[in-house]
Amino acid sequence: MARPFADRLMEKVREFGPLCVGIDPHPHMFPKLFGNPSAGSIAVWADGIIEAAAGKVACIKPQAAFFEIWGSPGMAALEHVCKTARNAGLLVILDAKRGDIGSTAKGYATAYLGENAACASDALTVNPYMGLETLDPFVETAAKNGRGIAVLTRTSNPGAADIQEKYVDGEQIFMRMAKAFHEKGAALKGEATPWSGMMLVAGATAPEEARQIREAAPDNLLLVPGYGAQGAGAAEAVAGFVPVNGMLEGGVVNASRSVTFPEAAQTAGTVEAWQAGISEAIKYAQDDLHKAVSG
Amino acid sequence: MARPFADRLMEKVREFGPLCVGIDPHPHMFPKLFGNPSAGSIAVWADGIIEAAAGKVACIKPQAAFFEIWGSPGMAALEHVCKTARNAGLLVILDAKRGDIGSTAKGYATAYLGENAACASDALTVNPYMGLETLDPFVETAAKNGRGIAVLTRTSNPGAADIQEKYVDGEQIFMRMAKAFHEKGAALKGEATPWSGMMLVAGATAPEEARQIREAAPDNLLLVPGYGAQGAGAAEAVAGFVPVNGMLEGGVVNASRSVTFPEAAQTAGTVEAWQAGISEAIKYAQDDLHKAVSG
Repeated sequence: MARPFADRLMEKVREFGPLCVGIDPHPHMFPKLFGNPSAGSIAVWADGIIEAAAGKVACIKPQAAFFEIWGSPGMAALEHVCKTARNAGLLVILDAKRGDIGSTAKGYATAYLGENAACASDALTVNPYMGLETLDPFVETAAKNGRGIAVLTRTSNPGAADIQEKYVDGEQIFMRMAKAFHEKGAALKGEATPWSGMMLVAGATAPEEARQIREAAPDNLLLVPGYGAQGAGAAEAVAGFVPVNGMLEGGVVNASRSVTFPEAAQTAGTVEAWQAGISEAIKYAQDDLHKAVSG
Repeated sequence: MARPFADRLMEKVREFGPLCVGIDPHPHMFPKLFGNPSAGSIAVWADGIIEAAAGKVACIKPQAAFFEIWGSPGMAALEHVCKTARNAGLLVILDAKRGDIGSTAKGYATAYLGENAACASDALTVNPYMGLETLDPFVETAAKNGRGIAVLTRTSNPGAADIQEKYVDGEQIFMRMAKAFHEKGAALKGEATPWSGMMLVAGATAPEEARQIREAAPDNLLLVPGYGAQGAGAAEAVAGFVPVNGMLEGGVVNASRSVTFPEAAQTAGTVEAWQAGISEAIKYAQDDLHKAVSG
């Protein structure tokens, strides 16, 4: 059996802190230094970020959409980025928000979490709208290969109000989901840590909801978007974390724009100056989060 | 302005009937005749189905997962399939169930519905769990380029009970969604037909729910999965259709396994015999659906 994702992730988080670096090559924010955005240039840009992050942070979260824009060469770039990051010791949480039934879900699981996955990732974000049974093929594949999944639970955007926050029999849907995901998460439990690699996506913009999710799902790691450019601070981002050995832990906090498009880097005239800007932004976010988890 | 998707689709449906041929290259069902499944062989297999379907049916629905299994070469195969089908006059509804916020959703929309989309499709399936605002980038891009979207509303699987069928303030979530999608669908209305290209996915396994959806969303075309191998018959599949010019219409009915993996074709020893089996299965499904819409 492969080593559980939860253990692999938390080992790194305990060493480097909970920052996850989002790799979102927005075409409209792409720095001129790397030329026009394309499948090739976004891979070069991402390589530079991976180099700045390797040995410094636990994980990266590439956003599939910004690679899919470029079609099959973009997917090749995504495969390159995942491989380069994993070879550099970074865990990869692929943000592709897949979800479907039966053999189709199995297809997505094979593509990203399979033993010989074409685009091998350590975890994959999954959308649960089609129901709980649709998670099973992802969980099975992940459990077998020491991978994880991160299920959308309470996202960081206003639209969370339309379905996720609605009350059913006196309980909000995201809370019903959190309880169900917690049960299914038993299959992805760590051995060296008490955590489950069935991560729940819980936006930093809703700290109170994150605390509720933590109560409903005490051992599920959280994947927290919305920190930084989306407006939430470090304290809000770790609202669902709990004390372990004198520190708060319980998941990873993603930062994309604030860390990969900092102004100092965007206007840099050389790759070295650009990379220094990225390193500085990573350090700044890490210090900010470190203060919050040292609380 | 590009010609609306709703008009383009219904023109073909009125000529050929509501059958949509699902292109789902399941690796475990792949016919030996085409060799081992791979990015290359599934493209050759799909080409054969497209050739059998061209000039006979309105549209195809490739399932992205079964191409993504093969990584970037699989995405190149999917691009090839979409292009070949569109060049042959078939409309392409890409079943990729994407969904995300803001600029990320815009990325997916650009990738599949954009003017110069890398993988150009006529419509894309979209998952609404993250909320109504997340549909806007898809709708905007689709409206601009004469494309459509197909939003998951009430799917054909048992898991539909976990979120979609739950009651919120006395009304089921799929019905609340159907009403909201109906409103947003105004941006994708046809000109020559009364239909909107904001399609709603409504499983054939739930005909009563399809009728309810039709009441809530009177002008939205339906994308109906679950007919054939998933167990629903033709009458159930067209439950959400309404009389227009003496026939029932209101969307398309997808058939995948029953049409693309019929036993006669699976065991064929030559490409010609295989293709004859596919053509026969298409004809059979068309006749079956024709009876139901001639009601």
